[in-house]
Formats: sequence, structure tokens, C-alpha cells
Amino acid sequence: MIIRKGQARSNTRDEPGFGIMETINFSDSGGIKQYGAQLQTLQPGAKSSTRHWHEQEDEFLFVVSGSVTVVENDGPHVLQPGDVACWPAGQPNAHRVLNESDQPCSYLIVGTRVTRDVCHYPDIGETLYTEGDAWRLEDSTGHVLRSGRSK
Amino acid sequence: MIIRKGQARSNTRDEPGFGIMETINFSDSGGIKQYGAQLQTLQPGAKSSTRHWHEQEDEFLFVVSGSVTVVENDGPHVLQPGDVACWPAGQPNAHRVLNESDQPCSYLIVGTRVTRDVCHYPDIGETLYTEGDAWRLEDSTGHVLRSGRSK
Repeated sequence: MIIRKGQARSNTRDEPGFGIMETINFSDSGGIKQYGAQLQTLQPGAKSSTRHWHEQEDEFLFVVSGSVTVVENDGPHVLQPGDVACWPAGQPNAHRVLNESDQPCSYLIVGTRVTRDVCHYPDIGETLYTEGDAWRLEDSTGHVLRSGRSK
Repeated sequence: MIIRKGQARSNTRDEPGFGIMETINFSDSGGIKQYGAQLQTLQPGAKSSTRHWHEQEDEFLFVVSGSVTVVENDGPHVLQPGDVACWPAGQPNAHRVLNESDQPCSYLIVGTRVTRDVCHYPDIGETLYTEGDAWRLEDSTGHVLRSGRSK
């Protein structure tokens, strides 16, 4: 199934503290279920998420355009088109993606669709547990901050 | 883990009938095991493979540079940078990738690392069975043409 540039459904988030991020979800548009494959575009100053790592999900990032700042445990790295980041499941290298340039930047991000996962946010001391559709976010004491079901 | 452009190990195939294809295996370089993520570059006239589809493996292609011809059941489609192809597991849409232009073309290709799969090659009537490391290729009568273990 071919999906032409600009043809897939896109979603734009504009959130205080995180800025403007457009996501084009190719895998949902194309019927792929075993992993997510999305093109994300960050406007200048935007951030993808809080720094995190997954116990069960392999994540992969490929820079398509612009300058992409990837923050890992050892600090920030500015990536250019063709550069890549790999975050294998279970390696506690917490990461996030920022745009510190004055132009939009885009990257392809792939992540396995696992049925059970634990995602750690070390900077804020929170942990997200996912089991099937159910999820719950706990603070560092194990207190449940929020919970729900996806979709 | 950051992998700079040109830093990952690349492998170049030059095979009669298929031409010159360079593969950069990011997932192997970055320790990702749940799916393969590779950048493939076809020289003019080169072909990725025989037309095929997988029963168990989701495949995803994102064009990075040049003009990429994707052949599916309904014929050829010329894709440009930013265009995508999705081949969900179990959908019998046999596909392959060619370079019919006079310049190199590159695309990112992602495929789930499944432990058991059946891959169909309808144009040549062959079927590849994979179970763990073991594989066998059968013709249309079920005769085993070749078999072995990967790695």
C-alpha cells in the first residue's frame, strides 16, 4: 500500500511546556500493527516528551530534515539528516527529542507495539505501566497518579 | 545510542540480475532486536529482491532520496522522498523495489524480527519457511530447493 507524502492523517499537538509537534502516523494509515512508524515534526523550541526509557520497547529514530537535538543520559547531541538514534528495550538510557534550532525539524520514529511495558521517567520520578489497553502512572512512592485505557 | 551518518557498518551486494545495493544495518549497529531498520541504496538498474510477501512480518518503507520504483500486485509506482509503502503481515500484496532512474536512490526499510514466517514469491512459485534460525526454500510442488540456518 502506497502512502504519498502529505496523504496520511496528521495530528498536531500544542501543549504548554512541550510546544508544537505534528505527527504523521504511517503505521496506522497503512495497517501496520507490530510497530508504530511515525514522522514527527517539531517546531522551534518544541520537545517530544519527558525524558524516558522503556523496559520492553525497542525505539529507533532517523533524522529526515533539520537539526534534531537528542538528549540522552550523557547530555544533548545535535543530529543532522541521516543520523540515527537506537534505544534498545531494557537499556536505561533515558532520552527525549528537542528542536533547539530556528527551523522546523523532522524525524522518523519507530517503536514496537508491545502488550506489556514499563516506561521510566527518571527526571520526574514517575513510572508508566502498560498492560494491554490499560495503563497507570505512578509516582516514586508507588502512588497511582492517573490511570485509564488507551483508545 | 547515537549513530552518525556513515558511521554504521554497511554491506554492498553486487549480484547478477539484481545489481548493486548498499545496506546500512542500523538496528544491528544499535542493538535493536525486535525489528530490523536498514537504509538501502540502489544504484541505477538495481533491484532489492524478487517480488514477495510475508505471512507474519510487517514491512515499512520510507523514501529518503531519489526516485524509488515500488512494484506491487497492481504494478509499478514511482515514489519520491517522503513517500511511504506499508506491507502489513498476511496481506498477499507481493512487492519489490527497483531503481529505474539514472541516479542512486535510498530508502529506509523496517521489518519485524519474527521467529516464524512464511514468505511467498508468486512470480517464481517458491516459498521460504523460517522457524527460528532454520530456513528452507520450497518450489510450488513442496520440493525443498535449499535449506540452512541463518548466522
